[in-house]
Amino acid sequence: MPYYIGDVIKDEKRLIARTPEKFRETGIEVRLNTLAEGADTDKGAVRLSDGTSVPYDILVLGTGSSAFVPKIPGIELEGVFTLKKLNDAIRMKAFIRDKQCRKAIIVGAGFIGMEMSEALRTHGIETQVIDLVPRPAARWDPEFSNMIMEELNRQNVTFSGDTGMVAIEQGKDYRLRLSTSKGEMEADMILIAIGIRPNVKLASDFGLQIGKTGAIQVNFSQRTSKEGIFAVGDCCEVYHRVSHRWVHIPLGDVANKQGRVAGRNIGGGSMIFPGVVGAQSFKIFSLEAAATGLDESEAISSGYHPVSTIIWGNAIARSMPGEKRLGIKLVADRATGKLLGAQAVGTIGAVSRINTLSCALWTGMGLDEIAYLDLAYSPPVGPAWDPIHIAAQELMRKL
Amino acid sequence: MPYYIGDVIKDEKRLIARTPEKFRETGIEVRLNTLAEGADTDKGAVRLSDGTSVPYDILVLGTGSSAFVPKIPGIELEGVFTLKKLNDAIRMKAFIRDKQCRKAIIVGAGFIGMEMSEALRTHGIETQVIDLVPRPAARWDPEFSNMIMEELNRQNVTFSGDTGMVAIEQGKDYRLRLSTSKGEMEADMILIAIGIRPNVKLASDFGLQIGKTGAIQVNFSQRTSKEGIFAVGDCCEVYHRVSHRWVHIPLGDVANKQGRVAGRNIGGGSMIFPGVVGAQSFKIFSLEAAATGLDESEAISSGYHPVSTIIWGNAIARSMPGEKRLGIKLVADRATGKLLGAQAVGTIGAVSRINTLSCALWTGMGLDEIAYLDLAYSPPVGPAWDPIHIAAQELMRKL
Repeated sequence: MPYYIGDVIKDEKRLIARTPEKFRETGIEVRLNTLAEGADTDKGAVRLSDGTSVPYDILVLGTGSSAFVPKIPGIELEGVFTLKKLNDAIRMKAFIRDKQCRKAIIVGAGFIGMEMSEALRTHGIETQVIDLVPRPAARWDPEFSNMIMEELNRQNVTFSGDTGMVAIEQGKDYRLRLSTSKGEMEADMILIAIGIRPNVKLASDFGLQIGKTGAIQVNFSQRTSKEGIFAVGDCCEVYHRVSHRWVHIPLGDVANKQGRVAGRNIGGGSMIFPGVVGAQSFKIFSLEAAATGLDESEAISSGYHPVSTIIWGNAIARSMPGEKRLGIKLVADRATGKLLGAQAVGTIGAVSRINTLSCALWTGMGLDEIAYLDLAYSPPVGPAWDPIHIAAQELMRKL
Repeated sequence: MPYYIGDVIKDEKRLIARTPEKFRETGIEVRLNTLAEGADTDKGAVRLSDGTSVPYDILVLGTGSSAFVPKIPGIELEGVFTLKKLNDAIRMKAFIRDKQCRKAIIVGAGFIGMEMSEALRTHGIETQVIDLVPRPAARWDPEFSNMIMEELNRQNVTFSGDTGMVAIEQGKDYRLRLSTSKGEMEADMILIAIGIRPNVKLASDFGLQIGKTGAIQVNFSQRTSKEGIFAVGDCCEVYHRVSHRWVHIPLGDVANKQGRVAGRNIGGGSMIFPGVVGAQSFKIFSLEAAATGLDESEAISSGYHPVSTIIWGNAIARSMPGEKRLGIKLVADRATGKLLGAQAVGTIGAVSRINTLSCALWTGMGLDEIAYLDLAYSPPVGPAWDPIHIAAQELMRKL
């Protein structure tokens, strides 16, 4: 009988509809609020927090990841949050509702920090974002992260770069006071969003190989180093089709796909997970930001010879009213002329271009082909020479 | 010295800025309002309408295409228009402004007909579209063209399908009366938008090979069948990377690319035009419609074994407020599992998906890879399983 073990948010609507009893009808045993504490390797079983042990023929680890929480004084104070699980969001919402939250500080200007700054501002909460690096969304080129910073300013989100947190204590004018490398600031709520770490304790207990990234090693079938044990999602590594390395890119769409591949193989089918190209995106107020493939430093560390260019174009044709400024950066390999990575920022059309370029990366396309790729031209949705074409032609001149 | 011969819209701002004198400074001789009437093949020269003859080492034909005008009674009446050149649009705008145009009939529900119905409605003009086929945008699957028809209805554009035009005469309540296979209708203005024909008279005069499509035959370098003569744009054929046939797809972006390829080769460089996959799109009020590759009948005539599916998904994640309904149709080859074509319709995200799938078609990608393609996931711009993935997985089950 298949088992599902783990803590499940009890008040989440879709899960309420499928209680453990409902699952049992379909032949799946569900144990909620149960921790898989460790390995009973001799018996081929998992030790559970309720004292029992569950034997397995096939074991799938989907242990996920946890928000990284730095060990600084005051980190345990009420009003300090991380955002990883649905429960975190529910707790945060309740806090905002019940405690009259006037101001929030977000530590970390990555995806979570950016998306939450919009969510908090939309709730009318004064919002400040701090980060160790000088600009938000540091994965993006400075030219693009400056555009993101301007958007934050326009929306009255304060950004403080080159700022590290030191300690949290009770505040005076607001509930909490955050000491940083740049001085003190107060807020009613502090969200720590400085990255996540894969949960590999159980995997280690089972003696599974852990990769250099700190996540569980898997192969194309999502099998770990031990017969009968699979791993999927944020806890495991994934093959990167451009760097040809196993990396840790914990994203929801990747996890979904890996889960299906593991399931197909467990069910007797044959399927591989073909890897990723590193496509990612977020929206910050009226701005789309998207990226795919490698940036220059990743390209160099993979042994490529990156050349890059940034062009500013229009997401729609010049003949149409209303400019839609769109920036595209391409990175290519000087030795082969192949695309290595791309970034885009704009009010519309950034994700669209990055998805097309992700497909180009997937198949290892060269700039010469990208420069003349057949795209669906029509003035309201893009110029005859799309920013993709212009960027590729521009970069070809640098090869 | 390079020559430019042709009729140029004199009151078009950007051309006024570059008068023939300005061009001459750059070493280009421009002859406006001059028709290249025929070939002087013995001398390797072009006969012009001003009685002179211009010799050439290299001749580039960019003779374009003309709107097809059916020979029906009354077609020459004032108020009957086609829309191909900038001048046509200027004349139509002047007519609407000066003649108090209350109602327009558009004959033909293709790209031009659809885009003009929006333009006319936006000017407050009552608009009716008729076509020989039962639905507008007939290239799209009936399920999608029905959605387009609903959008026309919502915007008070009347559509009459299965309706052919018979004759035009002076009207009673409005300026013109159009007799159709379904009865009479009146309007102040009639726009004929039933397709275009490549202008190949000059090419024929030079004895160039004309393809089965009726357009000029060219090779990958844009060279015609005669040494020293190139052709680019609407007047010539283009290689289709999916059907592997030479087709006539007269679109602005294709013409732009071909022009550059010809220029590079004439200038001593080496360049080929790699062909098209048939990517195309239009916007009709709040709806995007896009298509790429082959439809079933084109696939069959190319010898493929098409299977297809249509799925309806959401252009954004379910967790986001506001549904953005998006339909995707995929056509694949049963023998190889390769994608052959795609169509999409939705308020947002249709063109974006078609561009990604155009890149997949370009490289001959199979459904198995498309089903797990790495796309930039983020809830405001798409679900974790994008409609592309869902459609590809759905279609794989039919292979």
